Amino acid sequence: MHINILSLFPAMFSGPLTESMIKRAIDKDILNIDIVNPRDYSTDKHHHVDDVPFGGDVGMLLKPEPFFAAMEDIKIPGHVIAMVPGGKVFNQKKAYELAQYPALTILCGHYEGFDQRILDNLVDECISVGDFVLTGGELPAMLVIDAVARMIPGVLGSEESASRDSFYNGLLKYPQYTRPRQFRNLSVPEVLLSGNHQNIATWRRREMLRVTYENRPDLLEKTVLTEDDYLLLAEIKNDCHSK
Amino acid sequence: MHINILSLFPAMFSGPLTESMIKRAIDKDILNIDIVNPRDYSTDKHHHVDDVPFGGDVGMLLKPEPFFAAMEDIKIPGHVIAMVPGGKVFNQKKAYELAQYPALTILCGHYEGFDQRILDNLVDECISVGDFVLTGGELPAMLVIDAVARMIPGVLGSEESASRDSFYNGLLKYPQYTRPRQFRNLSVPEVLLSGNHQNIATWRRREMLRVTYENRPDLLEKTVLTEDDYLLLAEIKNDCHSK
Repeated sequence: MHINILSLFPAMFSGPLTESMIKRAIDKDILNIDIVNPRDYSTDKHHHVDDVPFGGDVGMLLKPEPFFAAMEDIKIPGHVIAMVPGGKVFNQKKAYELAQYPALTILCGHYEGFDQRILDNLVDECISVGDFVLTGGELPAMLVIDAVARMIPGVLGSEESASRDSFYNGLLKYPQYTRPRQFRNLSVPEVLLSGNHQNIATWRRREMLRVTYENRPDLLEKTVLTEDDYLLLAEIKNDCHSK
Repeated sequence: MHINILSLFPAMFSGPLTESMIKRAIDKDILNIDIVNPRDYSTDKHHHVDDVPFGGDVGMLLKPEPFFAAMEDIKIPGHVIAMVPGGKVFNQKKAYELAQYPALTILCGHYEGFDQRILDNLVDECISVGDFVLTGGELPAMLVIDAVARMIPGVLGSEESASRDSFYNGLLKYPQYTRPRQFRNLSVPEVLLSGNHQNIATWRRREMLRVTYENRPDLLEKTVLTEDDYLLLAEIKNDCHSK
């Protein structure tokens, strides 16, 4: 996959793109990333990329000219997204969709945002990573690249790829434990040491329901549950209320 | 504010923490960040930090010992959060809450996640930045630091701080435009050039409702709307259906 990034702060990408899984994908030639700075395409003598908004408003907006010129210089833009707080919410399904494109271009906003003509004419979709305000689109772009790169065949080893199940079945994951069995006064739940696979599976299902009920009740409403799940959930709710 | 980060991949933070707003906050001594690598606290000779899960499962989990030892070495941990896919959803309200603590410690997961004893005993709350799977908690930690740092008095200039309104009133922002008025065949909406503040305000309110309806209908259900808003919304829905 080829990814182009349009960013006014290319140095922000240095750590995240030169470490861990992304670095391995680049080294293996599975992933190829170009960072383009629209400031290099600004034609006025002070290399301005921003200007005041029309209609009376605070802050500075990104001007159309440098972004149009930078985009026109990209040989294979592929699918073009912009990281924008008001965009559609990024999730695992969107990561999977984006991973199907041979090329992606990601526009990172900054300051008060983009002149709307950039978004209307250069961008296929606006994406938001969540309901919080950030300094720019650079960190959101890195999140998207990480989530998308994991889905490209060959990027993850077979050990790692299994870890996707957190969101594939609609519930949050059960708690996990590793050695030592006893650390200070803290022990691993007996059932996990029992070797009884049926009991382990039941415990895990109940814990998934409990963690989801406690942290993300919204997910329970979207997930298809069995009759057994509803019985477990009734127990869990009862436990929570009697605490 | 003092922030401690526990991460097995400290080099990932190099770009994001040495650029833009975060760098300015560090330079002004408003923000102070220490990165601790739990691997330095591993006592076995190969400096292992992970091990296989109990109860039969794929992947590797982060062991308790290095994280407990690293935490005990932190002088002022303050409020302790862990970046975990199954945590509570991070949003602007949570960013505001976290910005009130004089010190924060952020634990970044990796591989299949943490041994649950780490989360149960060292961490005040588990936080997720969204419903997608990432290689580790480093990028989510950077997002949290960016969103939180913006709220510390003195970090942003007066120009920038106004930009928070995207999420403070429950609707997405209206489209914005800057110079030139005419770029190629693309012009700025007439109303924004009219100087008529009442018309501009009405246009902006309608556009906020439209963008929210198109991209995030879930937000409309949570926002208190006026009678005028409902009339505008009915028009917008009608326009969308007749397209």
